[in-house]
Amino acid sequence: MELDQIYMSIRDDLEKVKDTLKSISQIDFAWLAEQLGYVVKESGKGIRPALTLLSGKLNTYDLTYLLPMAVSVELMHTATLVHDDAIDKAVVRRGQATINRIWGDEIAVLMGDYLFAKAGEFVSDTQTPRVIKLFSQTLGTISSGEIAQFRGAYKLDQQREQYFQRIYGKTASLFSLSTQSGAILSKASEESVAIMKEYGDNLGLAFQIVDDILDFTSTEAAMGKPVGSDLNQGTLTLPSLLLIERYPDDNPVKRLFETRDKKNVALAIEMVLNSSIIEECYKIASEYSERACLNLDSLPENASRQALLDLAEYVVSQRA
Amino acid sequence: MELDQIYMSIRDDLEKVKDTLKSISQIDFAWLAEQLGYVVKESGKGIRPALTLLSGKLNTYDLTYLLPMAVSVELMHTATLVHDDAIDKAVVRRGQATINRIWGDEIAVLMGDYLFAKAGEFVSDTQTPRVIKLFSQTLGTISSGEIAQFRGAYKLDQQREQYFQRIYGKTASLFSLSTQSGAILSKASEESVAIMKEYGDNLGLAFQIVDDILDFTSTEAAMGKPVGSDLNQGTLTLPSLLLIERYPDDNPVKRLFETRDKKNVALAIEMVLNSSIIEECYKIASEYSERACLNLDSLPENASRQALLDLAEYVVSQRA
Repeated sequence: MELDQIYMSIRDDLEKVKDTLKSISQIDFAWLAEQLGYVVKESGKGIRPALTLLSGKLNTYDLTYLLPMAVSVELMHTATLVHDDAIDKAVVRRGQATINRIWGDEIAVLMGDYLFAKAGEFVSDTQTPRVIKLFSQTLGTISSGEIAQFRGAYKLDQQREQYFQRIYGKTASLFSLSTQSGAILSKASEESVAIMKEYGDNLGLAFQIVDDILDFTSTEAAMGKPVGSDLNQGTLTLPSLLLIERYPDDNPVKRLFETRDKKNVALAIEMVLNSSIIEECYKIASEYSERACLNLDSLPENASRQALLDLAEYVVSQRA
Repeated sequence: MELDQIYMSIRDDLEKVKDTLKSISQIDFAWLAEQLGYVVKESGKGIRPALTLLSGKLNTYDLTYLLPMAVSVELMHTATLVHDDAIDKAVVRRGQATINRIWGDEIAVLMGDYLFAKAGEFVSDTQTPRVIKLFSQTLGTISSGEIAQFRGAYKLDQQREQYFQRIYGKTASLFSLSTQSGAILSKASEESVAIMKEYGDNLGLAFQIVDDILDFTSTEAAMGKPVGSDLNQGTLTLPSLLLIERYPDDNPVKRLFETRDKKNVALAIEMVLNSSIIEECYKIASEYSERACLNLDSLPENASRQALLDLAEYVVSQRA
């Protein structure tokens, strides 16, 4: 099933999210407007705002609060990408040159801050201190997750547990904010909010595992960013970890981390692709996706629950 | 009058602000705790949290809300300093090595984000969407002000007006947030909130002009950071602008910006010190300080109003 179909019940409102995102570039400063317009031009798949809107259907669907919340999760996501790209010296994202590539690292740092500020403005429009606090806590989780990833770069002594902690921090926490905040703002029961947190966590983990797989199996054209970038930045993801588990004594990842000789990146990718590692990674991602679906078991059967189930299936169906 | 005396009526509560700031470094991740502990070890003069607490005395002084607000303005200030230092490649701040100097630019960016997140958590504890929105808007103003400063570096065609806009963005907006939020959280009248906004704006402008003067007249030991750093980064401040106004055809600032030859920094400082420019700058700062005092005219005479008046006098009394 394609995203368009899954998003059917919230299509018009997702358009409003996109329009609102674009409207933030309509400001007085010509040069800032230019950069902002560039940042919001190419939006991603909109999974995070879609999660907020779909979760907002649990009880009272009120766009007055759900729209700014959906905009704020997408803006927070965009802001973290802008900072990550500056930190990673990335040159391409969503098929276009990165902010740091065009305007320099300094502008990327300040532009990210500006986007955090805008995200904060929108979340304050929810008028709901509880989701505002969750929003800030999530930004803290993401930042400390990124610090953990940066400090763990080129370190071989990492286990799966640390990997799952890291991807929880950098991805699942924001998925979880998106779903929880939608549920809270719709005035759903505490039980439903807890369910949506679990669902968001599991979906986010599945999503990030597949994203990490695609960094091995996909192409730059399909991804909108270079493949092999995790290994190029010294980041261990699930495929690399399984490779190290299988060949603990000698493998291209180990040689890459020890010598920083980049020819080992291609060798590692080749070795992973010629093994059953990718299938094993999809299996692990599918387990999280299935858990996400199970989380929804006790919710009433309706269109939005079905969309959330379809979304869980969608994220693990992405193949190169 | 010294700050200790001015802060007399809020001394114990300012200690609570400091203790709370220090407590955020008590977290599970040893390496993050180390960096956080370092960031909050050397706090500044605490002017921003003091402004929140003093403004909070306008009506109902309730630490439940004023304490997290005071902590959040100081954290936002600290976060912006951490990012600014990374952008400016600064090596010393508050008398100690900067985060970017010790742990690198990448950690400085992520640590700044983490501090923004913590600031957001504290401001959400005010349970008051209005100040939370003001907080986010202020961060937007600061970031776009910093972008303007960065983009204006080494550009000679700047007028006083642009300088005042820039220092409004980078300093006065946060002073104004500090005072307004204190007034709002104390449930002061709308008239009083408007008064505290004006006071904060004027005090912030006076404060930043004096800070920019001290970058010419002071010493690294007294400032806790190198002097001449504005010119070294190509930033025009009031003393440089007056120098250019007086000697439009040829002056060391012009030569510095055209050739980037750093020997012109010392020449510019010398030329400014040997002129009446510094006195003229203090005169302009004093005008803003006096306006700040006039703003308070209609407030009832009491200890906190007196402290705010004394603070306005204090900021323009700082001499090298």
